Amino acid sequence: MAIRYPGGRKYTQAAKPAVKSAKKDYSFSNRGKTLEDELDESNAYYLANGIAVIHKKPVPVQIVKVDYPSRSAAVIREAYFKTPSTTDYNGIYRGHHIDFDAKETGVSSSFPLKNIHGHQIEHMRSVTDQGGIAFLIVKFTETERYFIVPFDLVDRAWKRMKDGGRKSIPVAELEEEAVEFHAGFRPRLDYLGAIAKLGIS
Amino acid sequence: MAIRYPGGRKYTQAAKPAVKSAKKDYSFSNRGKTLEDELDESNAYYLANGIAVIHKKPVPVQIVKVDYPSRSAAVIREAYFKTPSTTDYNGIYRGHHIDFDAKETGVSSSFPLKNIHGHQIEHMRSVTDQGGIAFLIVKFTETERYFIVPFDLVDRAWKRMKDGGRKSIPVAELEEEAVEFHAGFRPRLDYLGAIAKLGIS
Repeated sequence: MAIRYPGGRKYTQAAKPAVKSAKKDYSFSNRGKTLEDELDESNAYYLANGIAVIHKKPVPVQIVKVDYPSRSAAVIREAYFKTPSTTDYNGIYRGHHIDFDAKETGVSSSFPLKNIHGHQIEHMRSVTDQGGIAFLIVKFTETERYFIVPFDLVDRAWKRMKDGGRKSIPVAELEEEAVEFHAGFRPRLDYLGAIAKLGIS
Repeated sequence: MAIRYPGGRKYTQAAKPAVKSAKKDYSFSNRGKTLEDELDESNAYYLANGIAVIHKKPVPVQIVKVDYPSRSAAVIREAYFKTPSTTDYNGIYRGHHIDFDAKETGVSSSFPLKNIHGHQIEHMRSVTDQGGIAFLIVKFTETERYFIVPFDLVDRAWKRMKDGGRKSIPVAELEEEAVEFHAGFRPRLDYLGAIAKLGIS
C-alpha cells in the first residue's frame, strides 16, 4: 500500500507483521512499501522506455462522506479501506497480459501463505485460464532475495495447505521451482526479464 | 416492452428525441454511474461464465489523515480525489489485453472530446503499441446508443482537434467507423461481442 501525504511523507498503516518479533526494526507496512516503491520505479522505467505498460491499481476505499468546501476541491471526510478483489498489479508486456501481486515477508526460511487471500488465488486462476501470465513477486526482506513465483506453484502450495499440509512455501522449493532475480539499477527490479525464464517470449 | 433486470431496474428501448430537453432530470454523475453499473453487471457476467476477466480500477484517492478508533477499522478522515493516470477498465479476453474507458454524454449529435484527458490518450497509445486492444465505450444517454470507439479513431479525432479542427466526433462518423452495439439481457452490454467486429478472434 503506497500512500503518501502531500509533500511526499509516507503514510504508515498499522498492520501487523506475519511473525511478531520483539526487536524487528520494520513494520509490515514498511516492508510492503519498500517492494512497492521498487516496483513503482521499475514500472515507470518500463513505461518510459516502451518496454511494458504495467500499473499498480489504486487502493480500494469505500467512500461514505464527502464535503464540498469549495467548487474545486471535494474533501473525503469518511472512508474505509476495502479488501481488494484482485491482485494489485496488471498490464501488458509484448502482447502478454501480466497480472501479479507483490508480497514481502520478514520470515527468511519460507513464504507464509497467509499473505495471500483465497480471492486472489481465484483471480489468478481466471487470468491464467484466459491466457494471461499470473504470478507473485515475493521479497524476503531479511535476505534481500526476490522470486517470481508462477501461479502454478502458488496454486499447488495453496492446495497442499488446504489438504492439511504446510502453510508456507519453503525457500528451497522456491529455489527449485520459482525464478530468482536480483535488484539492479535500471530498472531497479527487472522482473519482466525474469519472466522470460518462465518460457515467455 | 416491459423487461426488468434482476434488481428491478426497468429496461427501456424506446428511442428518445434527439433534441435536448431543458429539464434534464439527471446530473453528470448520475449519467456516469449508469453506464458504470451496466459495465459492472456485464463484467460480473463475463467473469462468472469464464468469458473474460475485466475489472474497473478503484477510484484513486490521496489519503491525508487516518484515524484508528479501534484495532479493526481504520477510518480515513481526510482524502482527495486524484486524476486517474490510466483508463478505468482493463483485463484479459481470450489472451488479448483489453483496456478501455467508459464515457457517457448527454449530447446527441456528437461525442465531445473534452470527456477525454491527454494522459488517457497516451496511455491507450502505449497499450496499443504493446499489442493490446484499447478503445472507448461511448454511451449517448438521450438516444440510448452505445459505440465501441477504437483507439485509432479516437487518436485521429484528437489530432484533428489539436490541429484546430472540431472538438468532437460526430455521430455520423461513429456510425461509419466505430462499432455500434445494443443493450441486452445477459450480459447487459455485450461489448466484447462487439469487439469481434474490430477483427479480434
